Amino acid sequence: MAALGGNALLERGQKPDAAIQVQNAARAVAALVPLAGEHELVLTHGNGPQVGVLALQSASDPNLTTPYPFDVLGAQTQGMIGYWLLQALQNNLPGRQVSAIINQTLVSAADPAFSNPTKFIGEVYDEERANQLAAERGWTVKPDGPKWRRVVGSPRPERVVETRLIRLLLNSGAIVVCAGGGGVPVIRNEDGHLEGVEAVVDKDLTASVLAQALDADVLMILTDVPHVLRGFGTDDAEPILRATPAAIRREDLPAGSMGPKVEAACRFVELTGDMAAIGRLDDAQTIIEGKAGTIITPGGDYGGPGDLRPNSSLPGFSH
Amino acid sequence: MAALGGNALLERGQKPDAAIQVQNAARAVAALVPLAGEHELVLTHGNGPQVGVLALQSASDPNLTTPYPFDVLGAQTQGMIGYWLLQALQNNLPGRQVSAIINQTLVSAADPAFSNPTKFIGEVYDEERANQLAAERGWTVKPDGPKWRRVVGSPRPERVVETRLIRLLLNSGAIVVCAGGGGVPVIRNEDGHLEGVEAVVDKDLTASVLAQALDADVLMILTDVPHVLRGFGTDDAEPILRATPAAIRREDLPAGSMGPKVEAACRFVELTGDMAAIGRLDDAQTIIEGKAGTIITPGGDYGGPGDLRPNSSLPGFSH
Repeated sequence: MAALGGNALLERGQKPDAAIQVQNAARAVAALVPLAGEHELVLTHGNGPQVGVLALQSASDPNLTTPYPFDVLGAQTQGMIGYWLLQALQNNLPGRQVSAIINQTLVSAADPAFSNPTKFIGEVYDEERANQLAAERGWTVKPDGPKWRRVVGSPRPERVVETRLIRLLLNSGAIVVCAGGGGVPVIRNEDGHLEGVEAVVDKDLTASVLAQALDADVLMILTDVPHVLRGFGTDDAEPILRATPAAIRREDLPAGSMGPKVEAACRFVELTGDMAAIGRLDDAQTIIEGKAGTIITPGGDYGGPGDLRPNSSLPGFSH
Repeated sequence: MAALGGNALLERGQKPDAAIQVQNAARAVAALVPLAGEHELVLTHGNGPQVGVLALQSASDPNLTTPYPFDVLGAQTQGMIGYWLLQALQNNLPGRQVSAIINQTLVSAADPAFSNPTKFIGEVYDEERANQLAAERGWTVKPDGPKWRRVVGSPRPERVVETRLIRLLLNSGAIVVCAGGGGVPVIRNEDGHLEGVEAVVDKDLTASVLAQALDADVLMILTDVPHVLRGFGTDDAEPILRATPAAIRREDLPAGSMGPKVEAACRFVELTGDMAAIGRLDDAQTIIEGKAGTIITPGGDYGGPGDLRPNSSLPGFSH
């Protein structure tokens, strides 16, 4: 399973125009084509920059009484990004079936993230305007440096609701694009029904949960840095090439996006005994060969595809 | 196969708020639950009101150099509406697998609709502003009464690109939500690659093409009127209960949305020899029983499920 970051489709500083993201999707897919040609592949993706654009559009829309909530905005980005990745995969792998599905991620209504939301989203406001929006729209707002912003909970993903159909598609030989933006967050309410919630689920933790459920051979978390760094920001920074979950958890890693990536990778390795890796999208093929990225295995060693699960017919990805 | 109109989720005059559309989706799905419990079901849907909202948002977004093109907006609505229908179906049919997929509809790059676009979309402008936007954005604009509007082509749908995977999902017993808004319109370009185009594909014609490809027993086009009317708008208007394709094509039907619905139904009947129906969403179950709607069959007769294809194990829907 390969998890793409939201920046793979929209780099910092780029305009969020469709044409730019279509080009980026084609480039991202080109990096995965060698792997997809040989292995089964589930491709998940982030949506941070894209959901930010749609959230602002929705908040400025005079036709809406209430801006679209985050579950709905997430679903919109699954449609848009799913379409771009679907088309790029079809164009690069003629004859291969590809499916991009809309999917939901179940979180617990009792998750402590709902009572203490910490994930900043959307624009910055001064305190007065932030409090006014909080009163009007039921938002929680918190100071982010000198300014104020909305916060939502980032609950722990428990299960991808459509896991069974993802497995069916994968078993048929199709590539599956899913879990965009971590999946549309839903709870099971007191009627036993699924219900969307205003939350943001970490995309890498969702990819880890899905990879566990699908019994994937490998979880690759692909980003724009070649390795996790030991001593990040110091003069002695050095790349971590191999690690056990326990060893990499002891490292003093920078807060921000690397924390959840390492956590997602470690959980997968601990629960399945299989391999996870964090590295650059462009290095995807080289990572599987054991020559790039930060590779996390139960024993902290990896020599290449020969070291993958021996009873697997395919090195790399499998369900 | 059941084709829902875009108004099933957003009635004329309603605010396009998420909460309203979630309620409408639940009501629409409730009308289909008796059928879905007994039969295989592919559910397609329109996106007219919803894509209009997102197109305006995108056109007003100062962060975009160019508003999102119609293929991308269509994909956004597939995500949003697909999510609402997916969740409503899952909640109403516990234990049944449901899949909402993102999908594309292939049209011909040589379709005459591209050289003579006729489908009005978006806002009205005065002539000067319309011509200015045409120059800036490469739009085609035409007069719509006293005002001017953008027009795009509405090419004929040739094939739903993901037909094979829709069949796979259906064969597994899943309900499939797809072809939203007629599918994201794509052409095959001179490199042999799929490429999105600025066009709007008629959702009912796409549903007909998909129903033909899936070998569906029945195509139901569900809307907010109980029957097709003979002599619409006259004192002698009367409902058409049964018809052959040839007979209903001879009727003088009102222009607008009923024309494509009747055409979509007739093509399905002519090409498959099976039954199509046009009627009210709330009457879906009664239509299959032969007691509601306008029912089109090769011989113009229908007495109920016993008249459906004899070699089919299930009356109603099948692949």
